[in-house]
Amino acid sequence: QVTLGGTLDLATRHVRNGDLGSMNSVVSGANTTSKLVIRGREDLGGGLSAGFFLDGTILADSGAANSPFWDRRATIGLTHQRYGEMRMGRDWVPTQLVWNSMDPFATLGIAGANTFRSVYGSRALGQAFGSNAAGASQNPTLRVANAVEYILPGGLGGFNGALIATAGEGGSAGAGQTKGDGFRLGWAQGAWQLGASQFTVRNAAAEERFTDRVWGVGYDAGFARFSLAQRRWAYGSDTTVNSLFGVSVPMGAGQLKLSVLRADQTGATDALSANDATLLGVGYVYALSKRTALYAHAARLSNQGGASFAIAGGPATSGVATAANYFGGQRSTGFELGMRQDF
Amino acid sequence: QVTLGGTLDLATRHVRNGDLGSMNSVVSGANTTSKLVIRGREDLGGGLSAGFFLDGTILADSGAANSPFWDRRATIGLTHQRYGEMRMGRDWVPTQLVWNSMDPFATLGIAGANTFRSVYGSRALGQAFGSNAAGASQNPTLRVANAVEYILPGGLGGFNGALIATAGEGGSAGAGQTKGDGFRLGWAQGAWQLGASQFTVRNAAAEERFTDRVWGVGYDAGFARFSLAQRRWAYGSDTTVNSLFGVSVPMGAGQLKLSVLRADQTGATDALSANDATLLGVGYVYALSKRTALYAHAARLSNQGGASFAIAGGPATSGVATAANYFGGQRSTGFELGMRQDF
Amino acid sequence: QVTLGGTLDLATRHVRNGDLGSMNSVVSGANTTSKLVIRGREDLGGGLSAGFFLDGTILADSGAANSPFWDRRATIGLTHQRYGEMRMGRDWVPTQLVWNSMDPFATLGIAGANTFRSVYGSRALGQAFGSNAAGASQNPTLRVANAVEYILPGGLGGFNGALIATAGEGGSAGAGQTKGDGFRLGWAQGAWQLGASQFTVRNAAAEERFTDRVWGVGYDAGFARFSLAQRRWAYGSDTTVNSLFGVSVPMGAGQLKLSVLRADQTGATDALSANDATLLGVGYVYALSKRTALYAHAARLSNQGGASFAIAGGPATSGVATAANYFGGQRSTGFELGMRQDF
Repeated sequence: QVTLGGTLDLATRHVRNGDLGSMNSVVSGANTTSKLVIRGREDLGGGLSAGFFLDGTILADSGAANSPFWDRRATIGLTHQRYGEMRMGRDWVPTQLVWNSMDPFATLGIAGANTFRSVYGSRALGQAFGSNAAGASQNPTLRVANAVEYILPGGLGGFNGALIATAGEGGSAGAGQTKGDGFRLGWAQGAWQLGASQFTVRNAAAEERFTDRVWGVGYDAGFARFSLAQRRWAYGSDTTVNSLFGVSVPMGAGQLKLSVLRADQTGATDALSANDATLLGVGYVYALSKRTALYAHAARLSNQGGASFAIAGGPATSGVATAANYFGGQRSTGFELGMRQDF
Repeated sequence: QVTLGGTLDLATRHVRNGDLGSMNSVVSGANTTSKLVIRGREDLGGGLSAGFFLDGTILADSGAANSPFWDRRATIGLTHQRYGEMRMGRDWVPTQLVWNSMDPFATLGIAGANTFRSVYGSRALGQAFGSNAAGASQNPTLRVANAVEYILPGGLGGFNGALIATAGEGGSAGAGQTKGDGFRLGWAQGAWQLGASQFTVRNAAAEERFTDRVWGVGYDAGFARFSLAQRRWAYGSDTTVNSLFGVSVPMGAGQLKLSVLRADQTGATDALSANDATLLGVGYVYALSKRTALYAHAARLSNQGGASFAIAGGPATSGVATAANYFGGQRSTGFELGMRQDF
Repeated sequence: QVTLGGTLDLATRHVRNGDLGSMNSVVSGANTTSKLVIRGREDLGGGLSAGFFLDGTILADSGAANSPFWDRRATIGLTHQRYGEMRMGRDWVPTQLVWNSMDPFATLGIAGANTFRSVYGSRALGQAFGSNAAGASQNPTLRVANAVEYILPGGLGGFNGALIATAGEGGSAGAGQTKGDGFRLGWAQGAWQLGASQFTVRNAAAEERFTDRVWGVGYDAGFARFSLAQRRWAYGSDTTVNSLFGVSVPMGAGQLKLSVLRADQTGATDALSANDATLLGVGYVYALSKRTALYAHAARLSNQGGASFAIAGGPATSGVATAANYFGGQRSTGFELGMRQDF
């Protein structure tokens, strides 16, 4: 009734950050998040079942658990095969689920489509949740606490979807207590996959509204799977639009992946609107078995204007123009080689 | 030899705190504590067995673990079927075990018999362990670290009991390093269940003594189980006496629960002695299976004098008369609807 | 494919620290570290296998987990039975592995050979990593984060060995981000066991070099196993040399252990060079089964000069000559009685 599982994924990474030099590191979860999962499901009869799910990131390079421990998911749900599921707890925001499904790199590693999900680099995120460590780790563009959800059942002619609302409990979204609501709606049939989603945060900084919107289209041509998607963050006058084009090509026991990611920011001034960036990513995953794989990724991130995004794992950068390690307009390149095992 | 188990329990809660307004929240463990348990037992032959037990709360609404991680129990024990068990580690105080066995709500949720277990509301607790976050989470009225215990074997004509002593290790009880000792003694036969217990803390604030005493009587009349119990906390001139009357009525696949809880405080002044409170609770638990249940609870807490107890999960309250959110003498009401699954 | 295991080990301890008096405590892991282990191995065919290993200390006396959670090990590895293993993650330093294999007390408890591994007592450790809590818990003489390792295969005529390099990632060794490299080489055949190892930290305090060197010889005469080993820490002008002589005697279902440990410090002044200490340890372990044991240890630690080492678990000591609890030159004695169960 209870299943213990998870993943261990470690890689060595080399990142060069423009004229700031380069750094080597060992990183966790560049292909699949290192994690511990404990879950169970019970058939209650009459089409009804109950299940729980605990899922927590392992930062396997240092051996640390994340905070909160079950940061990825902690839910209980009651499912009727015809009427769908009611679920409560900590869960993914629907926008991230759609966005992730369109990215050949699953939003992980140096080429992942969440590379621009930075409260330091994206002004919309930074203004809404704080350009600081709490805002970086707790902002509600991945998962949210205190959620109540309704999830559509399977077998609806290819449609899937969900509604979600979260209780802020008197706290702030930048500290992990998000008052929000949203939905996702998708359709998958044959070679096609469509998805759209929105999550609105009602207690971002200054009790203002932050919106996170995603749409995506995937097409599997057999020799390759193509995807096109967009994720838009808006807070006040600031927006960051992430545009993604991805290709995934099966090659024997392996898989070749390519992606182009673009961040287009607009803000109150021309200077803020010029802070854009582009990421090119390429990767190869070689399956040693169904559960175990080796992989290599390469990526190049180019900033325009004063944009100061960087691939994680390089020398420390700053977006402050007067700082010694100011990174505005510079280029970050990275390479990583790793191994992943699901258990 | 090793068993992985636990519970996931989540609920939505609505609490109104007098004229301070109301708040919605998602909460963990209102019917059964959300927890992770790893335990094992080994038969050594000759009536001897050895076992260990690890049990840690999961704050499933946010996905967090508690601190310490195995906050509920971390013990090893050697048991002889005739001579009883020697046990060491972190374990429950005996008073809480007796108190819990008398409460239809198992001291959990908005109607639980530990609602007045607050270092902010009970002056005896606050003075002994500090009216602050450390005192609230670490005070030894639930569990204690560094315990050595002796537990009576089964088969003693219905009697059960235990002795416990804990090493303070040079720290203070309000910080979780309790120097204490205590016992519990019970008798159960047929419809009757009796219990008495005491735990004395010898290093409460100012190295003074704090005593926690519980007695209780339960009677199962078949159509309903009745219980009557009292828990008394004393520190210096301050006492808080919790009196409990509980009823639990089996109803088909469900169970109806009722409880009346009363906190009667006495202190150095008439004003302190007037700070009493009453809690009325009613609940219904509907079993979907042996392991899974839905439940609904309602509760009303009435403060007298300057007492400022509140049901957890409402707008923040204060017991300081000059504070904007002073709650003295006000009423707190709550409702919660949840689901629980054991695994 | 996934195995859940570990150990629970708790003991009661009594330590007297010279004229500072004595203290009782309950301690975790005096015979075998209390821990939780999750691991798995997968045969990939062709002599190749993949495996992961998660291992985290449980501080079972208080119920706490350590920080990081998987402090003992978090690795993934690809092994070829003929070419050896490539491994990444958090792992043991090779010096500790050799040192541990020579100690009858496995470097644990009051008589363990890591008693002098203290940033407060060993000036070489304190100067290199900081005489503070971070340096005490994070210094790289037990385990290191961000490691890449190569481990020799079995079947090399009794030889075993490994190479390790760790990425500092721009941090400092005293904060757990060690830039280091090292090796171990051993040989075991018949009654003999030899081992040598070195680990060099390149970013100790002031970006200076710290070296940790171990050699050891073990001989199993049948009626007893004897071991002789030395561990040398050097930073700038300060060195601490730990010399160990150990004996382990099988006695029926039990085992008698004896050890003599000596810390010989040298430094820039005669006073620093005079700060030496000696530890005498004796223990008996009685196996109740293959997995469960009772044990008793006694130890006496004698400081010379101004050395202020102490057995853990006694009244707080200080190495500062003007402190009220200055312990320089005093004697610490201890006794512990415990139980251990592997699961």
